[in-house]
Amino acid sequence: MYQPTIDDFVKHRQPIIVSENRVYIIDQTSLPYIINIIPIDDWRSAVFAIQTMQIRGAPLIGIVAAFGLALAVVSGNEEGISEAFDSLASTRPTAVNLQWALDRVYRVIMAKRFEDRAFVAWQEALAILEEDREQNRLIGRFGVDVLGGYVSSDRPLQIMTHCNAGWLATGGNGTALAPIYAAIETGIPLHVWVSETRPRNQGLLTEWELRQAGVPHTYVVDNAAGLLLKKKYVDLVIVGADRIAANGDVANKIGTYLKALACRDNDVPFFVAAPRSTFDFSCGSGDLIQIEERHGDEIRVISDGANRVSLLSDDSVVSNFGFDITPAGFIKSIITDRGVFDASAEGVLPLSM
Amino acid sequence: MYQPTIDDFVKHRQPIIVSENRVYIIDQTSLPYIINIIPIDDWRSAVFAIQTMQIRGAPLIGIVAAFGLALAVVSGNEEGISEAFDSLASTRPTAVNLQWALDRVYRVIMAKRFEDRAFVAWQEALAILEEDREQNRLIGRFGVDVLGGYVSSDRPLQIMTHCNAGWLATGGNGTALAPIYAAIETGIPLHVWVSETRPRNQGLLTEWELRQAGVPHTYVVDNAAGLLLKKKYVDLVIVGADRIAANGDVANKIGTYLKALACRDNDVPFFVAAPRSTFDFSCGSGDLIQIEERHGDEIRVISDGANRVSLLSDDSVVSNFGFDITPAGFIKSIITDRGVFDASAEGVLPLSM
Repeated sequence: MYQPTIDDFVKHRQPIIVSENRVYIIDQTSLPYIINIIPIDDWRSAVFAIQTMQIRGAPLIGIVAAFGLALAVVSGNEEGISEAFDSLASTRPTAVNLQWALDRVYRVIMAKRFEDRAFVAWQEALAILEEDREQNRLIGRFGVDVLGGYVSSDRPLQIMTHCNAGWLATGGNGTALAPIYAAIETGIPLHVWVSETRPRNQGLLTEWELRQAGVPHTYVVDNAAGLLLKKKYVDLVIVGADRIAANGDVANKIGTYLKALACRDNDVPFFVAAPRSTFDFSCGSGDLIQIEERHGDEIRVISDGANRVSLLSDDSVVSNFGFDITPAGFIKSIITDRGVFDASAEGVLPLSM
Repeated sequence: MYQPTIDDFVKHRQPIIVSENRVYIIDQTSLPYIINIIPIDDWRSAVFAIQTMQIRGAPLIGIVAAFGLALAVVSGNEEGISEAFDSLASTRPTAVNLQWALDRVYRVIMAKRFEDRAFVAWQEALAILEEDREQNRLIGRFGVDVLGGYVSSDRPLQIMTHCNAGWLATGGNGTALAPIYAAIETGIPLHVWVSETRPRNQGLLTEWELRQAGVPHTYVVDNAAGLLLKKKYVDLVIVGADRIAANGDVANKIGTYLKALACRDNDVPFFVAAPRSTFDFSCGSGDLIQIEERHGDEIRVISDGANRVSLLSDDSVVSNFGFDITPAGFIKSIITDRGVFDASAEGVLPLSM
């Protein structure tokens, strides 16, 4: 049986490899320390992968959920499909792509007779993956034009990012990192400030990605953003998104809003990169977006797979919100697969059509 | 020989115990996991304690440096004193109290004949410690009036702090935590949001202090400040300071400025608590304050004394600034041992007299 290697993932910058009736993912919970390739061959392992964050990032969550539902169709009956749908839908509340991808697969299977469903479900999941890759490519293309506008002759372009919105978070080259990869290919000299992103330290994933691709970078704690921006060490900040409301407010990894605040105070442009599927036009503003609260052990315990440090005792009181809301007014523009848009109700409106 | 116990430190909320011709400290590098009491009986161990952050916090750094210089006087000759002075002065660049305390001890010894110096040096170090305790008490007294103004009937007062500016950072009850301890003694119901403070996680010290004192608290990652303030979960933020410029700009632990930004955007008052000795009227503004850069392993490695997790490999590129500058305009007021002052050039001027 075909068995992908880590090189297959890294070389093509893709976090998921599709085989005949299963998909393979890299387990991101042990990255960058241990590289485990995991097969997803039923919907329950898709639920597990999303819930435990073996895979994460709004677009990739949607893709894996789509394949999860397709796997339920391949192997199951009517009740199995609906159980799989509900379980997958309830794994993560903030990323809009999850519901969008599930709805899309569900719609095509409901339009078919039972015996034809397996084929169309799998085809639809594949289409979602391929479209995401194409969207990443387009975000890269539009984004590199934006980045190009900030290049100066005296130093490499200084870009800060938060969390991981690279190929580990999507189907292809990423959202926030797609313009960076595209810029490197275009020969634009640049350097990336990688923000740690406590509590889960997804900055380590970005550090690993950039290292694999040979992109110059420096890793900093989240607290450093204010000083680095004030010192003008950073020319622009670019992040991904988990959900964008109709008024342009952006839900993204906790800490994003603090970076946007520091950008505004220091006249540094703040960009969001996301595909059309991250926009939720049924949601009027950021206040209405549900913020996921996750288990406190994400804060209490740090592990590299082999070793474990308990920062806090089990009975310590912690609070662990996963996302925050950056108001539209803080965002210079949103780089999408359909072009670059102003982050305001009027600005993002064309995308709703 | 007298040997203090951990209870002696905790009961009196003091991080330093003075015996005949030595001082004892709690090693804060292994707190809260392992509690080691360390004797400082020569100036070199004082240098080591400050450099390795066995003790930290601007006021406590000044106190331990003063005792370090006094120990050099007790045991040494003219050259020894000047070597000790220079070594102690170069341990940490940002905290102004260090230079201030050393200058004070140096001045009294230079005014005396060689044989009288040991006594006056020790007395001066003791005076610095006692004055700091009294200053903490006064900051608590003035601060509790400030806090009292934000108490509402519908929930305990919600206070956020950053880093550790409690008794582990000073001679007595702390600076930022002094008003909190005073409020608890006054019967004001309150709850403290403790910010982790990467990379060294001094939030763990604050968590430990508040736990010892029975003060309700919740530990959060630094990234959470924006969301918590936007959700109005926090009524006020209070932090300590490492150096305050003549125009009211405040140097404090990296990440402080991001909290101040989030306060301003959400109309939450931001307070700084510091004794008179933290003001540096020779420094016109925050831009002129030297920001200490520390070793990257503080970011790369996390340890609890027994276990160690390497987040990043040794060859990874990191940047580790220890402090940032919060502009005076973001600060509601500065709570000092001489009263509560506006953070502006005119506001802090009376303190220079």
